[in-house]
Amino acid sequence: MVQVAGGSNPVSSVGEFKLIDGISKLLASSRVRSSGLVLGVGDDTAIWQPRPGRAITITTDTLVESVHFRRDWSDAQQIGHRALAVNLSDLAAMGSRPRTAVISLGLRGSEQDRWVYDVYRGMLALAQRWHVRIAGGDIVHSPKALTIGVTAHGELRSAEQALRRDQARSGDIIAVTGPLGLAAAGVRLLSEGRHGIDGAPAMLTAHRLPQPRILHGMLLARAGVRCAMDLSDGLFGDLPKILQASEVSARVEMDKLPIPSSLRWTFPDWFELGTRGGEDFELLFTAPPEVFEHVTTVFRRCRLRPPIAIGTVTAPGKGGPQLTLRDSALRRRVIEPGAFDHFAAKPKPQANGRTGG
Amino acid sequence: MVQVAGGSNPVSSVGEFKLIDGISKLLASSRVRSSGLVLGVGDDTAIWQPRPGRAITITTDTLVESVHFRRDWSDAQQIGHRALAVNLSDLAAMGSRPRTAVISLGLRGSEQDRWVYDVYRGMLALAQRWHVRIAGGDIVHSPKALTIGVTAHGELRSAEQALRRDQARSGDIIAVTGPLGLAAAGVRLLSEGRHGIDGAPAMLTAHRLPQPRILHGMLLARAGVRCAMDLSDGLFGDLPKILQASEVSARVEMDKLPIPSSLRWTFPDWFELGTRGGEDFELLFTAPPEVFEHVTTVFRRCRLRPPIAIGTVTAPGKGGPQLTLRDSALRRRVIEPGAFDHFAAKPKPQANGRTGG
Repeated sequence: MVQVAGGSNPVSSVGEFKLIDGISKLLASSRVRSSGLVLGVGDDTAIWQPRPGRAITITTDTLVESVHFRRDWSDAQQIGHRALAVNLSDLAAMGSRPRTAVISLGLRGSEQDRWVYDVYRGMLALAQRWHVRIAGGDIVHSPKALTIGVTAHGELRSAEQALRRDQARSGDIIAVTGPLGLAAAGVRLLSEGRHGIDGAPAMLTAHRLPQPRILHGMLLARAGVRCAMDLSDGLFGDLPKILQASEVSARVEMDKLPIPSSLRWTFPDWFELGTRGGEDFELLFTAPPEVFEHVTTVFRRCRLRPPIAIGTVTAPGKGGPQLTLRDSALRRRVIEPGAFDHFAAKPKPQANGRTGG
Repeated sequence: MVQVAGGSNPVSSVGEFKLIDGISKLLASSRVRSSGLVLGVGDDTAIWQPRPGRAITITTDTLVESVHFRRDWSDAQQIGHRALAVNLSDLAAMGSRPRTAVISLGLRGSEQDRWVYDVYRGMLALAQRWHVRIAGGDIVHSPKALTIGVTAHGELRSAEQALRRDQARSGDIIAVTGPLGLAAAGVRLLSEGRHGIDGAPAMLTAHRLPQPRILHGMLLARAGVRCAMDLSDGLFGDLPKILQASEVSARVEMDKLPIPSSLRWTFPDWFELGTRGGEDFELLFTAPPEVFEHVTTVFRRCRLRPPIAIGTVTAPGKGGPQLTLRDSALRRRVIEPGAFDHFAAKPKPQANGRTGG
């Protein structure tokens, strides 16, 4: 087996990024032949092609109480919705059509049965909207932390049609499918106990009932887009992952960023919320200008909000991939990658801990 | 949506069985068409047939520290092995060939990085043996409880070939693929701090490194067996699930039960350990006598231990499915379904909390 240097450091000091890197190396070293795995580690989902023909996308995400949701901030149906939504969003980010999901609930034992059923009701309502079958799962006893694990499966016409992180090319337009920062603003309102301000309902809903951009993702794939991901760690947390995977740089135009004015009015740090807040679950994609135009037409035809161009992919500099922000006075500054961990109310260094899947 | 009565009772008092029942009803009520789901709830795995042809089995299981493993009882590689093994065992119990798995790790943050890599090394070693690709996953922060969630995927030649719980028929022979009670005995030794007794290594290994009966499961399916499951809750915890699903009764012969003599010598309650101890991950199956004979031949040919016949499926009585134990003096007694929760050192009422998947 490959040599991965591991020591006796606690993982909290090692950092997720390095840990994921070590795990990825271990996984990549695994010599297993002929199991039809097209894409294993480092994208929104894994891609599995059991035999020639359509490909299956697989993603798994666990929500932990107090880390990813709070029972005093969201009701059970909203929590169920959210647990499934974050997984469907990963399937959407590959351009795949969601098909099935399995659930692994870790219950303390003190939860009310009605609460548990309502979690499932929230999942089922979202599942039905997208014709997803929840195929069962398991329940385990988890006395110290309520957890909701979801693994979701989608289908792609072919593995080649997947929206991957490593397909951004110099000259591509960078675009997002919707506003940035609303979900983070919602969490901020909840943590500060402010609900009465202008625009609060949209912010709270963005956190409690995020909408996976499934139709958007499928349309992107069919329109010829090759590169996308979903925004779970904010633009400045996630775009660098595309740049890294594709080995390109990017320039983002500050005044094109769709940060709602309700955020600008309400929060002094609105720009941080909008760019590092995360969990918006809008899609971030890159495409050549003519493909971007085509996407705009297709989205309009399907009565979706047209995508918002926010910047351009450029050739990498000598120092490797770099993200530059340009303001209206054409001043540029280099952006440090990273997301804002709003539940912990402290910045987190990099990566959402995804190893693929 | 269907009416499922839920109240304000804590789920620990409602009982897993009733909770699972409520969730199953909710899931069954979901009206989603045409997503190729053949078997959703109530077996070892879900079966998904994205399109005509081969079928995909999907299972998910989460291990929670102190509930399913202890870090002072097993090393990291053993814990990783075990987390994957319990899932591969479910795939084996359907007769399917394991293909891919995704992992969702919930880390406290205090774990050593080497420990995390070793968990993966343990999983990878088992995965390689069975040509399973670990396709990534995610890592989340779970400050209060270390959790290892695995979702595993297998393939069946066709959905019709699946080894299901609802296919036992009156007249079938009931058989198991190996000894009963070793894993529970291993846990008992660890909890009592006794390691030096005769037979201890086999007991400890049965708990720490359970072997999923993958080849056995595939051979059973090809030999024409239709009904099987894996023994995670012990014979008296699991066989009643087959009886319930198939609406049949069963008679088990006490002196045919393959409870190793090392258990009989060591533990006064060896019979409880052997029949309700659980987590042996041997396969339990039923088959008409001629199919059973064929299986014996096939297993011998493949140099596997021949299956052990332990009883007979009978027609259900007036009171519904019933499990009867017959001793060497031909005295019969009716067995109450249920497993022994050895980690909690108390009996658990019924069911391993599986809703399918």
